Amino acid sequence: MKPQILILTLSVLVAFVVHAGSEKAPERGKDLQAVYRAGSQGSFDGPAEYFTGNVHVDLVFPANESAHYSGAYVTFQPGARTAWHLHPAGQHMIVTSSVGLTGTRDGKIIEFKAGDTIWCPPDIDNWHGATPHAPMTHLVLTGVLDGKNVIWKEKVIDEQYNGK
Amino acid sequence: MKPQILILTLSVLVAFVVHAGSEKAPERGKDLQAVYRAGSQGSFDGPAEYFTGNVHVDLVFPANESAHYSGAYVTFQPGARTAWHLHPAGQHMIVTSSVGLTGTRDGKIIEFKAGDTIWCPPDIDNWHGATPHAPMTHLVLTGVLDGKNVIWKEKVIDEQYNGK
Repeated sequence: MKPQILILTLSVLVAFVVHAGSEKAPERGKDLQAVYRAGSQGSFDGPAEYFTGNVHVDLVFPANESAHYSGAYVTFQPGARTAWHLHPAGQHMIVTSSVGLTGTRDGKIIEFKAGDTIWCPPDIDNWHGATPHAPMTHLVLTGVLDGKNVIWKEKVIDEQYNGK
Repeated sequence: MKPQILILTLSVLVAFVVHAGSEKAPERGKDLQAVYRAGSQGSFDGPAEYFTGNVHVDLVFPANESAHYSGAYVTFQPGARTAWHLHPAGQHMIVTSSVGLTGTRDGKIIEFKAGDTIWCPPDIDNWHGATPHAPMTHLVLTGVLDGKNVIWKEKVIDEQYNGK
């Protein structure tokens, strides 16, 4: 190849690379948004070690590097509830169906219904579940701190659940 | 009062105060959990500057010092959608009724239905709304960064909404 042709070829190549690098190409092939389809994230029954009664968990979305909380629908059959536990980074609970109950160590029990939200701050012992009379579903949004999102404690006995 | 009786009285008083101070008294009177009742956080119609069509926003819960995201139900009538916008700390969208649409600058439009979640990462331009055929409601969980949760841009024209 003659030197002039080589230089011309290299110039065109350099110009092309510089242009391609500076252009804001649409990012086809890279997903800009993530989609978590209903039922795709797994589900399981609440283990007897941490729950009383029948409880079902449907995972909705995982925590990520920007949003340090995960989402899950949790359904309790009548009388079912969690054990005592705390969340190192807190938890929001939004009732999506029926009426829920949540209690704290001071003996206070709050009834919350579809559309109501409870915020349990970090490191506060609580429990939550259905009333004795009907199933309840809530969406829980659970903060993650240093890889941990819950610390489980002892079961909630009937006297505590009934507020006696 | 005789000196012996005075000393005894003081001793009992000191013992009582020390005991009371070291005891973990239940925090009655202080609310351990926060409750946000349905409808208590305010609601408004989406302003025409930022939305096309009829859109209604029901605030659910505010961000707090531990959980840097707020929650709101947003309902779009058929054909309604947001303007282009980005969220500096990202946003989760969980469809709670019917079918939604969301688009990005690469021309990709995703259809997502009740139970599906979309994660829009920080600083990605997107829009979301109903299909042309039915109303849609989703719960949006919007991250807050340095006091900002959204940056609005231009309206989404019909060609973009229709993916043409």
